[in-house]
Amino acid sequence: MVIILQNNASEKQIEDIKSHLVDYGFQIHESRGVQKTILGAIGVQPDFDIRKIRILDGVADVYRITVPYKLASRDFKNDNTVIKINDVEIGGNKIILMAGPCSIESESQIFKLAEIVAKTGTKILRGGAFKPRTSPYSFQGLGEDGLKLMRAAADEYNLIVITEVMQINQIDVIEKYTDIFQIGARNMQNFGLLKELGATHKPVMLKRGLSATIEETLMSAEYILSSGNPNVMLCERGIRTFETYTRNTFDVSAIPVVHKKSHLPIVADPSHATGYRDQVPPIARAAVAAGADGLIIEIHDNPEKALSDGPQALLPQTYINLVDELKAIAKIVNREIG
Amino acid sequence: MVIILQNNASEKQIEDIKSHLVDYGFQIHESRGVQKTILGAIGVQPDFDIRKIRILDGVADVYRITVPYKLASRDFKNDNTVIKINDVEIGGNKIILMAGPCSIESESQIFKLAEIVAKTGTKILRGGAFKPRTSPYSFQGLGEDGLKLMRAAADEYNLIVITEVMQINQIDVIEKYTDIFQIGARNMQNFGLLKELGATHKPVMLKRGLSATIEETLMSAEYILSSGNPNVMLCERGIRTFETYTRNTFDVSAIPVVHKKSHLPIVADPSHATGYRDQVPPIARAAVAAGADGLIIEIHDNPEKALSDGPQALLPQTYINLVDELKAIAKIVNREIG
Amino acid sequence: MVIILQNNASEKQIEDIKSHLVDYGFQIHESRGVQKTILGAIGVQPDFDIRKIRILDGVADVYRITVPYKLASRDFKNDNTVIKINDVEIGGNKIILMAGPCSIESESQIFKLAEIVAKTGTKILRGGAFKPRTSPYSFQGLGEDGLKLMRAAADEYNLIVITEVMQINQIDVIEKYTDIFQIGARNMQNFGLLKELGATHKPVMLKRGLSATIEETLMSAEYILSSGNPNVMLCERGIRTFETYTRNTFDVSAIPVVHKKSHLPIVADPSHATGYRDQVPPIARAAVAAGADGLIIEIHDNPEKALSDGPQALLPQTYINLVDELKAIAKIVNREIG
Amino acid sequence: MVIILQNNASEKQIEDIKSHLVDYGFQIHESRGVQKTILGAIGVQPDFDIRKIRILDGVADVYRITVPYKLASRDFKNDNTVIKINDVEIGGNKIILMAGPCSIESESQIFKLAEIVAKTGTKILRGGAFKPRTSPYSFQGLGEDGLKLMRAAADEYNLIVITEVMQINQIDVIEKYTDIFQIGARNMQNFGLLKELGATHKPVMLKRGLSATIEETLMSAEYILSSGNPNVMLCERGIRTFETYTRNTFDVSAIPVVHKKSHLPIVADPSHATGYRDQVPPIARAAVAAGADGLIIEIHDNPEKALSDGPQALLPQTYINLVDELKAIAKIVNREIG
Repeated sequence: MVIILQNNASEKQIEDIKSHLVDYGFQIHESRGVQKTILGAIGVQPDFDIRKIRILDGVADVYRITVPYKLASRDFKNDNTVIKINDVEIGGNKIILMAGPCSIESESQIFKLAEIVAKTGTKILRGGAFKPRTSPYSFQGLGEDGLKLMRAAADEYNLIVITEVMQINQIDVIEKYTDIFQIGARNMQNFGLLKELGATHKPVMLKRGLSATIEETLMSAEYILSSGNPNVMLCERGIRTFETYTRNTFDVSAIPVVHKKSHLPIVADPSHATGYRDQVPPIARAAVAAGADGLIIEIHDNPEKALSDGPQALLPQTYINLVDELKAIAKIVNREIG
Repeated sequence: MVIILQNNASEKQIEDIKSHLVDYGFQIHESRGVQKTILGAIGVQPDFDIRKIRILDGVADVYRITVPYKLASRDFKNDNTVIKINDVEIGGNKIILMAGPCSIESESQIFKLAEIVAKTGTKILRGGAFKPRTSPYSFQGLGEDGLKLMRAAADEYNLIVITEVMQINQIDVIEKYTDIFQIGARNMQNFGLLKELGATHKPVMLKRGLSATIEETLMSAEYILSSGNPNVMLCERGIRTFETYTRNTFDVSAIPVVHKKSHLPIVADPSHATGYRDQVPPIARAAVAAGADGLIIEIHDNPEKALSDGPQALLPQTYINLVDELKAIAKIVNREIG
Repeated sequence: MVIILQNNASEKQIEDIKSHLVDYGFQIHESRGVQKTILGAIGVQPDFDIRKIRILDGVADVYRITVPYKLASRDFKNDNTVIKINDVEIGGNKIILMAGPCSIESESQIFKLAEIVAKTGTKILRGGAFKPRTSPYSFQGLGEDGLKLMRAAADEYNLIVITEVMQINQIDVIEKYTDIFQIGARNMQNFGLLKELGATHKPVMLKRGLSATIEETLMSAEYILSSGNPNVMLCERGIRTFETYTRNTFDVSAIPVVHKKSHLPIVADPSHATGYRDQVPPIARAAVAAGADGLIIEIHDNPEKALSDGPQALLPQTYINLVDELKAIAKIVNREIG
Repeated sequence: MVIILQNNASEKQIEDIKSHLVDYGFQIHESRGVQKTILGAIGVQPDFDIRKIRILDGVADVYRITVPYKLASRDFKNDNTVIKINDVEIGGNKIILMAGPCSIESESQIFKLAEIVAKTGTKILRGGAFKPRTSPYSFQGLGEDGLKLMRAAADEYNLIVITEVMQINQIDVIEKYTDIFQIGARNMQNFGLLKELGATHKPVMLKRGLSATIEETLMSAEYILSSGNPNVMLCERGIRTFETYTRNTFDVSAIPVVHKKSHLPIVADPSHATGYRDQVPPIARAAVAAGADGLIIEIHDNPEKALSDGPQALLPQTYINLVDELKAIAKIVNREIG
């Protein structure tokens, strides 16, 4: 932590600041220039609230010089985290696709979509069983019955399952059926849930919150990692900005930034980011071109009748064509779709 | 719902759109102008996803002309909701103050602060017992022991208690000790929690999410109202913007906007909105001047030693002075602090 | 324009609203449902301020149902605008690259960079001569001397020139040397400047403002188009959001959205969007994958000594490699780099 | 400037970084801890682009520890700047009101409004003569004829005049009639204009840009100050956020923040911030309660017929009542309306 003193800070103020630093357990380095006096405080803990120093008299500004996360940082672990599930590796050279409906709606629906997913070489089947929605009057999901259907469809077509867990009391039932837990954007800072998932043994995909910085997303990953689960992947799904034409603004830069700051894989979700079917292929292509480690895409064979988010679901044929484009782009960035 | 067709929409497209509308259960009014054809669709349900129409060929734009919430709207209930707890009314002519520490830390701390709170005429004691924080390495609260201490302190000084509930499995224990449930900004769209709180009989204060529009905040209130609990108040606590000097940007306009759109009371939280002690009094005064029905403010007798959010806690004497200013401002807007 | 009346609007209010609409020159269609009365107002002018109706008693909401721009819309002109400069076409099948330094610094610098630009097959040379900057203490550009140097370098290597014009009184001098006028993000709503450039005969590249919606960007294009200059291309260069890791957030979705709403070409500027050299290649690739009609990229042979924005300039070899990647991606979206 | 090195920075990298710092003219302090090595670089100029260091190999992060503005800072000048115009002082104990129409429309209009303005004790008359608007099809102002009318009306009622200047070539004509130059939000970073106004002898009111941080606003003030004009006041008029109910989000916290960081007065503009008449009084009261040094408010005697921004103009009687409320609130914060 570096503390910049005000130009006119008095000796008494400086002594008082230093005494606070000692109380908080820091070692102090003092550097007096002509204009500025700077204090270096060594030993800051990740949870130290730097505002405690910023409000002291005589302090002009304070900078935390260590990132507030540790296990998630590239500094802590230089090699990419590669998450292995059966024969699939997420975070390695292959770019992993995940596809399926927003909500599991029926046996025939999920089997039909699983078949399409498998046919394109996509390895992971997505689908939601618990769907509390913005409106209390909307379809709320099939629950455990939906999970059973998705598991059966996935097994039939040799697919891995990813599904969202929204509350601690759903973990046990979901764990029976899923291979990957998904944490939705609204739960990114549901720290109780993060800790519980940190105690499970299955990989977790953590979606960035609508108003979360990249740093905060990594802080949330830290919760899971520090609770004992090393298999965390992040997911960029758009942030809230003033632009309203798309549902959210897909932050494509988050992909290279996460790769620089962290060893964790990052997946892109163009369906939720844009909210409209015709926006999904260009953003999916862009994500792969920018270096994403995976994509999660909503598809539906009859989106007009979909019980949730139909307007953002790709038709099967559009998805099939998109996968071909993605395969070609992957090669250009020296990777392959797997 | 109003559907604007593209200038060059074909008759076939128009027929197709109309047939979709009929399928979705709408009555249709058609209006053909020289340049534009407009379809009015009567009977939209609150949960209808208007993107289903927007993606049809020939559609230029779609507007939902009913707000997506109902019970929370001023249209549904014209008179202000007044929430009664013992002899205190929230949402009536009196502006209600709530004060106390961020976290309950010890018996002596909460009793000392409750005494100060009571002395200023403040009616409600705030304090957190469960504190999962952004960093997994921070103090996480005293839990039920903290609740017991706060209840005892409140009873000693004849105060009402408000405290945050973060997970469904905490409702039962918290309900034993609190008078008002607080839902934090991060949980504003934790719909499972909202529904469970809608089934309780105690008032709920719902904080606006960092990236939630006013409309979305009212949608979340609708979840609680439609689950059977009419005693909901909202809380403006700052939104996330590009400005980083303050922790969040306090949206003072939300106060008159909520009063216009809804009958629910709105409270302001200048402590979390700004994040810095010296910003709290000006924003508190501004909120009362703009028409807030209440204020929730963090105080601490020794903020440098506070286990959480000390930098934003007011010192007792500052709070006492602030209450005097607020009393004077309240009069100017024809209300009183109560 | 569609006006939704309040559920409890009185007959007197409805008459008053209709009389206002007649005064403003509208034809009225009235539609009374069980719950809602809706007025359609035909004949709204692009400049009509719909808030005039929204504030009338009895009005619940008002929607403009025509976009507030006309000449820039796909409705008005369905075919893509293709801007021809010498043998180069912007907005056609080819994706056009523009590259060069942030500021023109010296004869040797601009000639050396022009040579590199030409060698990669890039057709357009960029460079700034007037550089008022955020800080009044920074390098402010070489002015007309810089323009002369850039023109000479471009002619030597058969390149087209693009450079920024910041004030009306610079138009004449810049017009002597440039082929394309660039309007910077900060000037996107400098309407006086837009009108003057609308009266020139050279193409204009209009950069989206930091806090401008796509619709507002098209409104600004409308200023130029309606002043007589049809050769306008837009440029996405990042918007301001709460995320601070990158300088701005590159809104990759703006590319397909502009293509849907407008016939004007759209160029991407990954250098200004990200602010850091290592972010430029992934974002450049993403932009081409998402359908951009061109890219404008800053390069510098000695970025550490660059007089402005060196940290975001690509080294020549990085640019050369990037162009190869872009050529490959262009093919996948059925285009070519030209 | 403080440079934090990566944990694994090599000696060679450290030497290279230090050699760059020396080249850039810095003195270096080196501090090696167990985990982190930190370099302090003394002598950073306000215009130094810290990204030049951030991109060097081995650097983890860089902090500028001096604010990038100087003359505008409270550090440079501790006493509040008080701007004197005739017998009016802006920035002193009195809170100064400015009122008038958005656009000057006719002699009778401006005289009638000037009379109302004067009657309430308001000292400054506002009004626009040059009105380039978002839409090219809107009313564009009366130009110099409007200025003459406003000057005559102001002289008749002993008022001071404030009006907006949008382009350098308008300065001379506007200077003949106005007492204060207003710089609109869209021109906040029109650095050429700022410098020219810095060379005039009349006070300048600089409006914060829609997407400008407080720091950037102070940087723009620095342009005017460093060009020789010390009489600068700032104006908070709302920032762009994701909330769309109000036109912009009025950042009430900017008022105490500016007072902390700078000696310059800060005025609030509730009319442009909110965009709706019924929002103006609560926000005006909030601004005074938060410590604003002045308010600028649009009024119109017949807002339905106003040629621009009628929906946000207060009716005369509403303004008269508001001034009474503001006088009462001013007293509570130990000031008076003057």
